[in-house]
Amino acid sequence: MADQKHLKKQREQIDDIDNQILDLLQQRNRVVQEVIQTKVEKQLPVFVAGREEEKTNAFRKKAEERGIDPNWAEDFLRMVMASSRAAQSAKTFPRSTKEPKHVLYVGGEGGMGALYRKFTENSGHIAYSIDKGNWYQLEEMAPKLDMVIVTVPIRVTEDVIRRLSPKLKPDTILADFTSNKSEPLKAMLDAHSGPVVGLHPMHGPSVPNLSKQLMVFCSGRESEKADWFKEQCRLWGMRVIDAEPEKHDHVMNLVQGLRHFVALLHGSFMKEYDLNPEEMLEYSSPIYRAELMMTGRIFAQDAELYADIVFANKERRELLLTFFNHQKKLMEMVEKDDKSGFIKEFESVTDFFGSFASQALKESGYLINRLADRFS
Amino acid sequence: MADQKHLKKQREQIDDIDNQILDLLQQRNRVVQEVIQTKVEKQLPVFVAGREEEKTNAFRKKAEERGIDPNWAEDFLRMVMASSRAAQSAKTFPRSTKEPKHVLYVGGEGGMGALYRKFTENSGHIAYSIDKGNWYQLEEMAPKLDMVIVTVPIRVTEDVIRRLSPKLKPDTILADFTSNKSEPLKAMLDAHSGPVVGLHPMHGPSVPNLSKQLMVFCSGRESEKADWFKEQCRLWGMRVIDAEPEKHDHVMNLVQGLRHFVALLHGSFMKEYDLNPEEMLEYSSPIYRAELMMTGRIFAQDAELYADIVFANKERRELLLTFFNHQKKLMEMVEKDDKSGFIKEFESVTDFFGSFASQALKESGYLINRLADRFS
Repeated sequence: MADQKHLKKQREQIDDIDNQILDLLQQRNRVVQEVIQTKVEKQLPVFVAGREEEKTNAFRKKAEERGIDPNWAEDFLRMVMASSRAAQSAKTFPRSTKEPKHVLYVGGEGGMGALYRKFTENSGHIAYSIDKGNWYQLEEMAPKLDMVIVTVPIRVTEDVIRRLSPKLKPDTILADFTSNKSEPLKAMLDAHSGPVVGLHPMHGPSVPNLSKQLMVFCSGRESEKADWFKEQCRLWGMRVIDAEPEKHDHVMNLVQGLRHFVALLHGSFMKEYDLNPEEMLEYSSPIYRAELMMTGRIFAQDAELYADIVFANKERRELLLTFFNHQKKLMEMVEKDDKSGFIKEFESVTDFFGSFASQALKESGYLINRLADRFS
Repeated sequence: MADQKHLKKQREQIDDIDNQILDLLQQRNRVVQEVIQTKVEKQLPVFVAGREEEKTNAFRKKAEERGIDPNWAEDFLRMVMASSRAAQSAKTFPRSTKEPKHVLYVGGEGGMGALYRKFTENSGHIAYSIDKGNWYQLEEMAPKLDMVIVTVPIRVTEDVIRRLSPKLKPDTILADFTSNKSEPLKAMLDAHSGPVVGLHPMHGPSVPNLSKQLMVFCSGRESEKADWFKEQCRLWGMRVIDAEPEKHDHVMNLVQGLRHFVALLHGSFMKEYDLNPEEMLEYSSPIYRAELMMTGRIFAQDAELYADIVFANKERRELLLTFFNHQKKLMEMVEKDDKSGFIKEFESVTDFFGSFASQALKESGYLINRLADRFS
């Protein structure tokens, strides 16, 4: 009984500490909001990479002095900083230009269109949206537009570009958000005589904010005219990379086409093998649970969207066939119970991956431990 | 200039708040250590699931009152609680039995053996280790042993069981840690007349502690004699599930065999396609980065270990061939550009997955956002 009483007192102490931590977090968010407000008013960049690194290193050191694992402390701080960023997502951002720009999102009612419209408006620009329903308004909008961003399903992108372009002023920047770049870029260059850029925001529409997300930027024609948009992406906290459209598409065939095909393959094989995902969860380590969730999420989404991604173009389909033929070679080892062949192939990949493999082991180790904290 | 000064002051305020949070975390860890110490001394269970849920719900509510997103707050609290657990890993645990048990780990110098030996000893039992090097000591140890756990590479498990068993007392519990269960269990039942259980700890040797990890428990003979070990696993914070060995192996053929084969396939195809993983990182969204790390980590590890997993048994190899044949059907759609066939297959998987797909979308959304905080 005395033990229980003692334990109860200790628990109350912990609750009290937790309340104090929550109070401090509330205070912290308030100060961060003030900082952001000041920066927005004075047109200063909101995120300064160097400052975040400096802050992290100091925090690690201070944690270590208090007997707290510095790696844990770094994750902890990143989580706290992410919370401040999230609190900001509903607020305003600095604008990258003196005068507001007029930006039309074609397909602006879709997930990505709506997201970027919100950010465009929250930075003090003027955003427009057009869709099948109000296509007739295009002519009225056209004279005002500084930039047009096409964000429609991949299978209609080129059609929309061709229908749209004749209505635009020659100095309007024409851009698209499609996940492949060579063909839309070619269509835009053919259909429009003014500035052209191909964009690929590499995230889904459900992200809480754009901070730390990736924007791929492909030059078409006079792309320096879109430098203000690049800068605006950075002000939203994005990482912007310049890419050759062909190189981008080559990588995306693997990242988008093959990955999503393999996800369907896995789901479809689980059905064939009659292994219900809920049953599998019983046997899941945290990391397998995460993989199962990544496969499962696909099937809560639109089949046609994924068909569009996988069947985007001929090169992508050919890649899948190459992949299958490559697999055939590995299957021979399985058929022949050729373990030493497997080991040889494994080691040649180890050589190809080089020091990346050790980096991956370390980084994924962190990930696995975080998952174990959360999902079990 | 005045702005800079003002910003500097605000930054100092944030640093000051962060220092206070670190101080509170240090205090919190201290109290948690005291709680654990009390529990260990009084033989009370260290983790009480109900208490953790209650605590989490109260914390969510208090966070919301302070304008902090309750989902974020829950993750935050779990991270804080995980830190307390980690601090405990070097310390002692309550023992599930009145008298200490004598447990031999065969292969006790390997990763898993060393890990469980440490936990066994830290709970006040007596742990022994045997390996090729000191095999001759087995006869001397045998009369004392309450339990023997075989944790050696899968390819030698059955041999080791056959060599070992004749030396054991009939009432010693014989167990193994192999990742397949039917065959080792059969070998143990054949070789030993006493209690037999098959175990599969579903995690790697590099976990910081056993908390929330999964232990699969398969009954062989008189398995109730090993109830104290089951209870000990729970005292270490593990989740223990009872499983039929055949069902376990059926699931593991997919979870272990297919997954690791597909990982080799991916790495090997990246080499073929000449896409260096470091180059890929440039184009990575946080979630693809995580996937790349999960593939990459494999190639920093022992090729033979993975060959053993993939080529563990005939059933596993046959599964890979079934998988390949299943894929052949899907490839026909790709070859014929049969998008509607793809959509039909996709939708049938959606039906098979049922409500799991929406759960997966939600849970993985959380995961993706956490990854975006961390890796970019």
